[in-house]
Amino acid sequence: MSPGVAGNRSDRFSRWLVGRVLRAIGCPPICVVLWDGQQVAAADGPLLARVLIHDRPTLLKLILNAELHFGDAYSDGRIEVQGDLLEFLETVYRAMAAARRRAGPLKRKLSQWINRRHRNTPRGARANIHHHYDIGNDFYRLWLDDEMVYSGAYFPDPEMTLEQAQLAKMDYVCRKMWLKPGESVVEVGGGWGALALFMARHYGVTVKSYNISHRQTDYARQKAKAEGLDDRVEFIEDDYRNISGRFDALVSLGMLEHVGVSHYRQFGAMMDRCLGPAGRGLIQVIGQNQPGRRSLWIERRIFPGAYPPSPRQLADIFEPWEFSLLDMENLRLHYARTLRHWLERFESAAGAVRDMFDERFVRAWRLYLAGSATAFSTGSLQLFQALFARAGVNRLPWTRSRLYDPTATKGERRKGEGGVRTSRLSGISAFSTAKRAQENELQ
Amino acid sequence: MSPGVAGNRSDRFSRWLVGRVLRAIGCPPICVVLWDGQQVAAADGPLLARVLIHDRPTLLKLILNAELHFGDAYSDGRIEVQGDLLEFLETVYRAMAAARRRAGPLKRKLSQWINRRHRNTPRGARANIHHHYDIGNDFYRLWLDDEMVYSGAYFPDPEMTLEQAQLAKMDYVCRKMWLKPGESVVEVGGGWGALALFMARHYGVTVKSYNISHRQTDYARQKAKAEGLDDRVEFIEDDYRNISGRFDALVSLGMLEHVGVSHYRQFGAMMDRCLGPAGRGLIQVIGQNQPGRRSLWIERRIFPGAYPPSPRQLADIFEPWEFSLLDMENLRLHYARTLRHWLERFESAAGAVRDMFDERFVRAWRLYLAGSATAFSTGSLQLFQALFARAGVNRLPWTRSRLYDPTATKGERRKGEGGVRTSRLSGISAFSTAKRAQENELQ
Repeated sequence: MSPGVAGNRSDRFSRWLVGRVLRAIGCPPICVVLWDGQQVAAADGPLLARVLIHDRPTLLKLILNAELHFGDAYSDGRIEVQGDLLEFLETVYRAMAAARRRAGPLKRKLSQWINRRHRNTPRGARANIHHHYDIGNDFYRLWLDDEMVYSGAYFPDPEMTLEQAQLAKMDYVCRKMWLKPGESVVEVGGGWGALALFMARHYGVTVKSYNISHRQTDYARQKAKAEGLDDRVEFIEDDYRNISGRFDALVSLGMLEHVGVSHYRQFGAMMDRCLGPAGRGLIQVIGQNQPGRRSLWIERRIFPGAYPPSPRQLADIFEPWEFSLLDMENLRLHYARTLRHWLERFESAAGAVRDMFDERFVRAWRLYLAGSATAFSTGSLQLFQALFARAGVNRLPWTRSRLYDPTATKGERRKGEGGVRTSRLSGISAFSTAKRAQENELQ
Repeated sequence: MSPGVAGNRSDRFSRWLVGRVLRAIGCPPICVVLWDGQQVAAADGPLLARVLIHDRPTLLKLILNAELHFGDAYSDGRIEVQGDLLEFLETVYRAMAAARRRAGPLKRKLSQWINRRHRNTPRGARANIHHHYDIGNDFYRLWLDDEMVYSGAYFPDPEMTLEQAQLAKMDYVCRKMWLKPGESVVEVGGGWGALALFMARHYGVTVKSYNISHRQTDYARQKAKAEGLDDRVEFIEDDYRNISGRFDALVSLGMLEHVGVSHYRQFGAMMDRCLGPAGRGLIQVIGQNQPGRRSLWIERRIFPGAYPPSPRQLADIFEPWEFSLLDMENLRLHYARTLRHWLERFESAAGAVRDMFDERFVRAWRLYLAGSATAFSTGSLQLFQALFARAGVNRLPWTRSRLYDPTATKGERRKGEGGVRTSRLSGISAFSTAKRAQENELQ
């Protein structure tokens, strides 16, 4: 903040600028309050939120590059939002998307080009915003679920708790891959180890799980040992390019975002090397409908190098090796809900986070979580779950109905109702006995 | 056929050539019998089929371009297959695929290039093989289901009849699009009208169905009139590029194959023009895992201009307009089963087909149906069902479970069991009342 500037009287020009910006993003029902108390609104009717801009340099930066500087200024407290942050973001995102649609193809191309140009400028200062993988386990423990799963959950019932939904996600993923006891699985990017341990525990498979984060690998190894699963689950601190061995299945949740489109062929080559002749796998990745668009602020300040692929870009990891796409599901509303859970827990732990870091960090992460929830709920981000197999593998289930068979999902998914208490292991037995007929091969 | 050549003694060179071809396609357990009775096999052990080649020019053509000339020579009777045709084709396809995989990337590239080169040579004679859309309704009536559906069916139970599976497919497609009474649907490529009438009958929607085939359109109109549905279903004889109006949903089954990749953007532009702000749609299309490969013979002799896209190519109809891919399912084994049903019925009607056309036509269509069944069952062809919507539409079902809810599928899918007899209309009421909770929007 430049104290000499804050407090100046706003001029006509500033008000005119704010009006222009509000119109450019489609006149959302919000009001901007400038440093001297003057208010600008572009829409009539009731207002949803008030945005306070505390000084003129902030306004000018916002106009030069709103996408980047809104986040920075919000983190610093130079911008404040009065009203519900999620509702405010949802309204602005939807207004911007509508404005983009109205803009026509030429203007859209121009905005894509501008977006592209920004992408290649130097990264800028990242001071004071700790990067994801330096932050440490204690921070995530404050607001993730018990199992420390840091990827989108699955809510077969929207009222589920986050814990239930993360278990449901892991079970859903295992069932999609139709894992069978004794099979071998390689996991690419295993986080704190929850899925690897889940697969070994409930589906009787052996797992090699790769991760480049030392702290996560360490944590996961300790958990495996404590649970007595370290003979079946191996956590390896290494890059995906160095994965060796042959496996029956490959799984990767929320990791491909960090690989970068230009390395997708390398990623696919690794899958081709690692999967046996009847191999199959599942990739869960944040994506988008069209290449190119993404949040500059999140990319620079929160997730350096992250990029959500479009379906076309995603195909680069499958097609060169003739992998067959079996089932691709878009679960964006489930990720929106996951993020709302995370945000709620984060807010409850805000004091502890502030003690651990500082107020700026709290505000930045609040915006990141709320902004991501909004991106998923308004459809500017997607969550793709892509199931694939080697070409010509016919040991496929005949339909997807077994994924939704309630008799096989009691253990994890349903809240204990009707007095049926099944163990966590019910997944395996139900899977291996039920619906065999449906899973017959054609030939 | 050159009668002067047939009957010559085969020389060492011919036998050597046949041996080379058998080794090149991976030594399948088959035996080739030359015109003078000499036999060549590349594999030890029991043989699956014997291939009779009746003259030397046929062998030479086969060696120059097996993909094209096998079909021609089989149709002419210059090649015969002793043994089960489907089993023979399955074995050869799998052997060829394995050989291709073993070939390594360089050789694969070379074979793709050769394939590409052939693609652009002049089309060659099509005499005596009638093209799909000239053949007429009487021919298809001989071997399609009662409703005359000429696209892959859906077998929730593999033992279903073809009639049941085609109804199940139509119901599945409607449920995937979550059609509601009173909505408007545009169909692109409506065949003989079965789906359009089904949607109006069971889901209470109005339909405009486009088709460039005069005979099909005529047939469909008569059916609509006979059923009293012509106030709700309009069959229009026109090109997809001329579709006008705004609709709630768009559906197209087995039509995109004929559009050609270079026109996908035009197809997408049409979808963008026709779909309302909350629009969604479903495309069913034969596809492949990798661009480029396809059967030359089928393309030239059976389906001129047809091309099965890879997922990457398919994305061209969605991404430029920011359509959001919601669910893509690969149903190739269902198409394999559909084709086996068609082949079986075709064989039963072979005498009538012969009377209608000639023996060459019967043999060509037998090979086309058996070859297609094999391409799907061995995984060299895929069947993609892609559900999409405008970006940001949240009126989506929360999960896919309603697609597999047996209480909503009795009418069409299950063989009358347990004494519950529901009308064909059960689809609508079940859809509109059941599982409302699951279909709530997030916001």
